[in-house]
Amino acid sequence: MKFHFSFKEYDPKAEAVYGTILTLGNGYIGIRGEIELEPTIYGTTIAGVYDYAPYFYREIVNAPRVIGLQIFFNGEPISLSTQKILKYERELNIEDATLKTLIAIETQSRTRIEYESIRIVHGKIKNLILLKFKIKANEDGMLTIISPIKTNVVNPSYRNEIMVKHLNVMQMEDRENEIYAEVETLDGRYRIGIASSLISGTKAKRAVIKSADGIAEILTLSVKKNKTYEFIKYITILSSKTPTPNLREAVLQKLQIAKNSCFSRLYEEHKDYWKEIWKRAKIEIEGDKNAENGLNFSIFHLIQSMPIDSRISLTARGIHGFGYRGHIFWDTEIYALPFFMAVFPEKAREMLMYRYNNLNAARENAKMNGYSGAQFPWESADDGYEATPSVIPLDMMGKKVVKIYTGEEEHHITADIAYAVELYYKFTGDEEFMFRYGLEIILETARFWASRVEYDEKKGYVIKKVIGPDEYHEHVDNSFFTNLMARYNLLLAVKYFKIARRSGGEWSKTLKRINITEKEVQRWLEIAEKIYIPRQKNGVFEEFEGYFDLSDYTLDPYGLGEKRLPEEIRRNLRKTKIIKQADVIAAQYLLKDQFDLETIRKNFDYYIIRTTHASSLSMPPYAIVASWLDYEDLAYDYFMKCAFIDLHNLYGNTQDGFHLATAGGVWQIIFRGLCGIDINNEGVEINPKLPKKWKAVRLRFFFKKALLSLEVRKDSVRVKLLKGEEVKIRAFGRNAVVKRGKETILHK
Amino acid sequence: MKFHFSFKEYDPKAEAVYGTILTLGNGYIGIRGEIELEPTIYGTTIAGVYDYAPYFYREIVNAPRVIGLQIFFNGEPISLSTQKILKYERELNIEDATLKTLIAIETQSRTRIEYESIRIVHGKIKNLILLKFKIKANEDGMLTIISPIKTNVVNPSYRNEIMVKHLNVMQMEDRENEIYAEVETLDGRYRIGIASSLISGTKAKRAVIKSADGIAEILTLSVKKNKTYEFIKYITILSSKTPTPNLREAVLQKLQIAKNSCFSRLYEEHKDYWKEIWKRAKIEIEGDKNAENGLNFSIFHLIQSMPIDSRISLTARGIHGFGYRGHIFWDTEIYALPFFMAVFPEKAREMLMYRYNNLNAARENAKMNGYSGAQFPWESADDGYEATPSVIPLDMMGKKVVKIYTGEEEHHITADIAYAVELYYKFTGDEEFMFRYGLEIILETARFWASRVEYDEKKGYVIKKVIGPDEYHEHVDNSFFTNLMARYNLLLAVKYFKIARRSGGEWSKTLKRINITEKEVQRWLEIAEKIYIPRQKNGVFEEFEGYFDLSDYTLDPYGLGEKRLPEEIRRNLRKTKIIKQADVIAAQYLLKDQFDLETIRKNFDYYIIRTTHASSLSMPPYAIVASWLDYEDLAYDYFMKCAFIDLHNLYGNTQDGFHLATAGGVWQIIFRGLCGIDINNEGVEINPKLPKKWKAVRLRFFFKKALLSLEVRKDSVRVKLLKGEEVKIRAFGRNAVVKRGKETILHK
Repeated sequence: MKFHFSFKEYDPKAEAVYGTILTLGNGYIGIRGEIELEPTIYGTTIAGVYDYAPYFYREIVNAPRVIGLQIFFNGEPISLSTQKILKYERELNIEDATLKTLIAIETQSRTRIEYESIRIVHGKIKNLILLKFKIKANEDGMLTIISPIKTNVVNPSYRNEIMVKHLNVMQMEDRENEIYAEVETLDGRYRIGIASSLISGTKAKRAVIKSADGIAEILTLSVKKNKTYEFIKYITILSSKTPTPNLREAVLQKLQIAKNSCFSRLYEEHKDYWKEIWKRAKIEIEGDKNAENGLNFSIFHLIQSMPIDSRISLTARGIHGFGYRGHIFWDTEIYALPFFMAVFPEKAREMLMYRYNNLNAARENAKMNGYSGAQFPWESADDGYEATPSVIPLDMMGKKVVKIYTGEEEHHITADIAYAVELYYKFTGDEEFMFRYGLEIILETARFWASRVEYDEKKGYVIKKVIGPDEYHEHVDNSFFTNLMARYNLLLAVKYFKIARRSGGEWSKTLKRINITEKEVQRWLEIAEKIYIPRQKNGVFEEFEGYFDLSDYTLDPYGLGEKRLPEEIRRNLRKTKIIKQADVIAAQYLLKDQFDLETIRKNFDYYIIRTTHASSLSMPPYAIVASWLDYEDLAYDYFMKCAFIDLHNLYGNTQDGFHLATAGGVWQIIFRGLCGIDINNEGVEINPKLPKKWKAVRLRFFFKKALLSLEVRKDSVRVKLLKGEEVKIRAFGRNAVVKRGKETILHK
Repeated sequence: MKFHFSFKEYDPKAEAVYGTILTLGNGYIGIRGEIELEPTIYGTTIAGVYDYAPYFYREIVNAPRVIGLQIFFNGEPISLSTQKILKYERELNIEDATLKTLIAIETQSRTRIEYESIRIVHGKIKNLILLKFKIKANEDGMLTIISPIKTNVVNPSYRNEIMVKHLNVMQMEDRENEIYAEVETLDGRYRIGIASSLISGTKAKRAVIKSADGIAEILTLSVKKNKTYEFIKYITILSSKTPTPNLREAVLQKLQIAKNSCFSRLYEEHKDYWKEIWKRAKIEIEGDKNAENGLNFSIFHLIQSMPIDSRISLTARGIHGFGYRGHIFWDTEIYALPFFMAVFPEKAREMLMYRYNNLNAARENAKMNGYSGAQFPWESADDGYEATPSVIPLDMMGKKVVKIYTGEEEHHITADIAYAVELYYKFTGDEEFMFRYGLEIILETARFWASRVEYDEKKGYVIKKVIGPDEYHEHVDNSFFTNLMARYNLLLAVKYFKIARRSGGEWSKTLKRINITEKEVQRWLEIAEKIYIPRQKNGVFEEFEGYFDLSDYTLDPYGLGEKRLPEEIRRNLRKTKIIKQADVIAAQYLLKDQFDLETIRKNFDYYIIRTTHASSLSMPPYAIVASWLDYEDLAYDYFMKCAFIDLHNLYGNTQDGFHLATAGGVWQIIFRGLCGIDINNEGVEINPKLPKKWKAVRLRFFFKKALLSLEVRKDSVRVKLLKGEEVKIRAFGRNAVVKRGKETILHK
């Protein structure tokens, strides 16, 4: 496994992409990877801190920049934009989650200056950020280091030219050897306290400047030529819902504790934390280092965004940026969560708890739209209300707008969440979660669907005016994906209602709490049985009613994006059969047991050549199904594209944050597709579909309470039980039981 | 006359108010008065440079900040916000238009540093800004001065938290001893080139830093204790409509020329320029220094905003700020222009030419609204189209908005401009302007009114659904002010049509150009004669139809603003007789000849106790009419409030720019009210109404091509002819002819 990802060319335009792919984070704090010596619009992301925003309801706040430095040597700036760059090297080490920067410049007056830094967003101590740096010049001189907490940060709005300030500065304090700033969101809901202290290894003069930009420490010292001077910047950040009586004291105390520990001890602790993480999460691919690198790079960034508690869930672009305003979509439950269920089940539980905690908002949402039960918002922020913009202005004046229908019509998310609840339960067997929380989600979402359907004399129960995963086609009736998932959700509720009634105890308490009756459940079953599924033609399911009547156009499945379409097609996508992303195939992937392989093949062959993959959510389901169908080249091609989506900036918007749905998708391609792992109540089934050059895949995951270690080869599967109870496995038509202390091997 | 306005207390919150009242400008460039050593959101205003903006159509651009400095001594910032302030003094000298700053601080390491600067926005060389400064420390040490062109500036939008970026950086260049930055507005219409050069009197090391914030020169030098070091910052700015092939060369050449002249010569030239200005514009008030100070302070800021050419006119808040987005209202023609007509007639002509140049936009505006002729927009920017926002959001989300009706209904501006055209002609006798441009404005605006009126069987010609000057009452029918001004406009057109036909030549060419017929003019006359004026009650004109039926409430005429009203009245102002500002009285002031003094008195007595003066346009007309009515105390009280409107931040929004309408109003109170000067085709009539303690007022003004010097006392008027032909005057019932070389005195 490659741990070091190096970037050796300085390009001001590429910095924003480096910003995302070199982000360091611990689920709570995200520090983007832009170099600390240059200004950037990006400050800090703090998971869960949102504020009102024009058009977008609420958005994650661009919090004060704490990582920046301004350094002068004899009055000359150590700046990449003006001085001659002799060396530029940024190195992200994903093994211990550090970012190293090595710079050498020659100033206008010909002094050579070397700068070296290491950045840590502490894995274990979630409030702590460390920056250790060294400076060496080949002349004697005066070194000035400005180390600010830059409070004057804003969020770009619907256009980058329009910015929104989210923070009021409540306090700026100079305290002997540290500075403190406290800000509050404009809506008054959150406060952020930040303390920072720059410590010099050599005696230095210290000053503090407060201004409209923020507060900064300034160290000045005389330096000798060719001698290295070392500094450590300690930063602690704490956010809280208001009121926050002890915020300042808590932040300052955390800073004190960090400063009292020595840097190397804090660093060791951080490395130990990541060692434990990688023990579980690392995946080895024997025979394909490149694939292994992209895969683990994706996993690294997924883990960095993993929320620390259930107040917030994983956002579409992580703590890496402000894309999609820090909102939470189905990306989380359908694309990212399976990784966490298998590898960090305790985190998957917290992310589902975020949905449970916002169940009341989902109930209000349903009510407001005229439905019953709970309807989850298409985009969700910190409070669980619908956060999808209803329009986005196209021009400065806000006169021309594009109407956004996803918030009003993309209803499948409600079933997707119910799906994730069951999948989590299958993976973990976490009964306490199920009877207390999961059951309530499943029942309330079923209630929503029962109120969402309409009865049609000829067709049975229909669902009109929705958007499926394929967002090119809006206001469609009877979307295959939506209707199938709705039916699944209703049947799930029927099943768990029976289980709950049978189990009694805590299970039935939940039934009582939300007042579910036998009669209501009977109706769900009736609806599910009569739900209308659009027609089939030669075995191919129609994506929605009328889809087959649209004009046809086909595409190379190895291509990507909309640019390859003729202009007149591109302008009228909704009138064609071209689709944005996996839709029928996504449903067949999720609800695999409902289809035989030949039906799936017919559908795959039909839709794959009509898909632009303009959404980063498209390739993962296709890749998995391609594996099942033995379309090895295509599966591998998609896997590699997904594994390098941000390293190669495949969609041109990596600067807005990491594509976490795709990262989760990459893991699913390996797990569900290429390794062919499937779980059910019985145990684990493995059906390897490794690409030609791959010799073996080694990975670990939890099933129920067991931790398994697998080595998957084309013709064998080795399984070890590292923790927990025995597990039944099946591969190559053979069954076995994996027990403690003994490796189990199944051969083809 | 007081030339020095000093401010000796540093208060970060007051800085934004100082920002406006200490603004320096030359009509082209405005540099706000915030201290150069602290950051501020304000950059530079450049007359005429606008860009698209959400809700406000177009707004004046907050151009790059060029005046800021960041200074460090031994690494410690020379900063007011962090260091101990031993001395803070800002002194605006209005005689030679300079701003002096004197600062002494003690740093955290107990160094005492003195900083002194003088700022000049050059009166004659419109592109030039100068900042000369001196620094002295009581320790040896290292001095670092950062002198930026800060391109990273934004405009606050409908809320301060929402900001709009208007400029793209096209170029940043480090040129040996100067830096250059070029920016372009996002709409691509304008470019701004800025060159800057910081010259040190002592040898210093120079570096340059380019970043996302802009480009900066950095000088570093070793300094000896108690020695004074001197620096000069030269800045040249040039803006232009795109394309701008030679912008860079022009800006750099201007900088070169400035640097080649010595500072003291440039300063002398600047002082000479202002000496000439004050020769004309100064007004002396014997017996009331305080009044004199406020008056000349207002005049100073009016002059600083006077546009350099006809591409733009005087904006509501001048080059002092961004209030009202740099738009142009009736404030200009009705409140500010008379001062310029009398004192700088060549500038008044240019401001009217701005309206003429935008006559086509006014024609399109009329057409779009279903009318004929030319309808001037209520708010006008650089292109003459309607720039009034139609809504302003009340919350961040833009969901709650307040609908703004002034753009759709406040039609009187069209007549106001015609009025100003005639007044200019009366003042100047500028026939070439009149037959070529003024006539066309008068005829096209009359055409507008002829299409705007409707015929009512009972009432005659009515004008429905308008807003008069009193903006509390919207959608009103037959506003007294509007109908009277419309009638005036129509009759003016009839009169000048006759003159034009009689005069022939160039005059009749204009008639032909816009195709005016006898028949059309006949109809104007008919409409004017039958225009409906709302009812009178006890001699009081109804402000609009139905006004007298509203519920009544009265106010202390010496009070100001809405806060003194009971909450329930304040929330339902439109249902009461309370008015925002002079409306009927404004009409009676402007069209004085149509009313006898007793009618005016009845109307004044009625409306004065129903006016909140919530608009800064309210007091001037009332003060003038109060003088005429011998309400001496009230006239004086209003005069003083208006003269100190911004020095005392009377309306609480001085930070948004200077109240130029009020400043023009202050001059009109003196001229038309307290000195009682009236002009007509015959000559000048003086009817002194000086306040008790005033002994004499001395002022100068142009009438036709004559420049007159007046000394007005309660019982005598002395007049000298400084330039031009003889002028007839009349005072105390006596007539005289003022001739060259001889003072004329008329006694009571």
